[in-house]
Amino acid sequence: MEKKKIIGIVGGMGPYAGLDLTRKIFDETRASSDSEHLPVALLSYPQRIPDRTGYIAGRANVNPAQEIFEIVRELIRLDVSIIGMPCNTAHAPQIFDELRRLVTDAGLQVQVLHLIEEVARYLIEQGQDHRNLGLLATRGTYAARSYQAVLEPLGFQVITPDDAGQERVHAAIYDPDYGIKTHSNPVREKAQHELRAIVGDLRQSGAEAIIVGCTELPLALGGDEVEGLPLIDPTGILARALIREAAPDKLRSHPTTVHSF
Amino acid sequence: MEKKKIIGIVGGMGPYAGLDLTRKIFDETRASSDSEHLPVALLSYPQRIPDRTGYIAGRANVNPAQEIFEIVRELIRLDVSIIGMPCNTAHAPQIFDELRRLVTDAGLQVQVLHLIEEVARYLIEQGQDHRNLGLLATRGTYAARSYQAVLEPLGFQVITPDDAGQERVHAAIYDPDYGIKTHSNPVREKAQHELRAIVGDLRQSGAEAIIVGCTELPLALGGDEVEGLPLIDPTGILARALIREAAPDKLRSHPTTVHSF
Repeated sequence: MEKKKIIGIVGGMGPYAGLDLTRKIFDETRASSDSEHLPVALLSYPQRIPDRTGYIAGRANVNPAQEIFEIVRELIRLDVSIIGMPCNTAHAPQIFDELRRLVTDAGLQVQVLHLIEEVARYLIEQGQDHRNLGLLATRGTYAARSYQAVLEPLGFQVITPDDAGQERVHAAIYDPDYGIKTHSNPVREKAQHELRAIVGDLRQSGAEAIIVGCTELPLALGGDEVEGLPLIDPTGILARALIREAAPDKLRSHPTTVHSF
Repeated sequence: MEKKKIIGIVGGMGPYAGLDLTRKIFDETRASSDSEHLPVALLSYPQRIPDRTGYIAGRANVNPAQEIFEIVRELIRLDVSIIGMPCNTAHAPQIFDELRRLVTDAGLQVQVLHLIEEVARYLIEQGQDHRNLGLLATRGTYAARSYQAVLEPLGFQVITPDDAGQERVHAAIYDPDYGIKTHSNPVREKAQHELRAIVGDLRQSGAEAIIVGCTELPLALGGDEVEGLPLIDPTGILARALIREAAPDKLRSHPTTVHSF
């Protein structure tokens, strides 16, 4: 049996997002028995990685890239050669670029896929015509303009909520009373209601599809579309990209978790 | 912040069972933010671990304990101190006892919890009066009498299907056309139908509760009860046992995935 490359996952940002990516890797793998599934190592160490949005907002001095890098080293010691991070906010340039620098400076032989660059690749490969994309994300991702930095040079328009709307999306994720990070199973109705309202606003502003740009959000927004707009799920796209790099022959031709539109 | 012990999971037996245990650890943890969740390392290496039932049936010579032991060593290098294996069949005496011997002989400082011993502990702590327990399991677990070996000395009666019934349960798990290992998301209706029929037979034979004794089965049998009989979910029990050993203050007092009855 050919030895398959091990897929590593830097989890814990948050814990359920790590599970969601792992499940989507399994779902997107062509396998009819246990042994046909790919090897995956998930390290879910939420206490070690500082809050990403807090760092981007300047409320914390320590770059989360440092601790993510230490976990990447642990994954490499497990013989992992391809790594994914199910956290959009960790792909802000000030965090991800620093991680890339640390990996390069240490001379590590590992491929850390960039979640948002994979979304761009997916959109282009789909040849789809929705050029106006609404973005649901954390305060950190909005502030860092992580999606704009990658997508706008390619001709896409990224549409974001106004300031109050961004705060409502952030609260749907973080609020201790109804946010997804606290109440993830089951998700509170208020979180779902708030997100649907914001999607409605984004549609009013011209959005033709919605990027579900925080890995907690698929827990609240299931299915193919919301308020009549197709959903783009970066976690599902990252899952397929990891399989493509690890074992392209194992990639399902008909995606089950990423919907063409 | 107090450093929490890392929980290690030997996954891949099968891949979705590893996810199910990880999710139940998160669900059973008292946490209101990412950073309050416990550190978990999941190594899902399905290709490395030979089929457990095949070994018990004498169709394979290599004891799966050997490769499980290698994965335990990798977990220890990650500083894991408590390990769970979401696979009932791997707890057959001829596999688990060999694993224990390898760990002891190597002088490794690690606690590998025994899934079935934890079920026994749970039943006794519940002080429940269902002494006649129906068992759904793989051919390997039935043949090895893994549950009987632990539960009968404690006064429980383990009720198993007849030979044809055991084959039907095994097929619901392994059959390439409708078994859970091939069709886990979604599970095929035939697999669910077959399992319900066998539960009906076990009730006829006097079973007062059902042990869902293969980690693939909760994917097909959700909820608290089937055919009027309460379900005992060893995966949920193992999740709680792992938290109890790693950080007892983090264990939810009201279980969400294990139902008292």
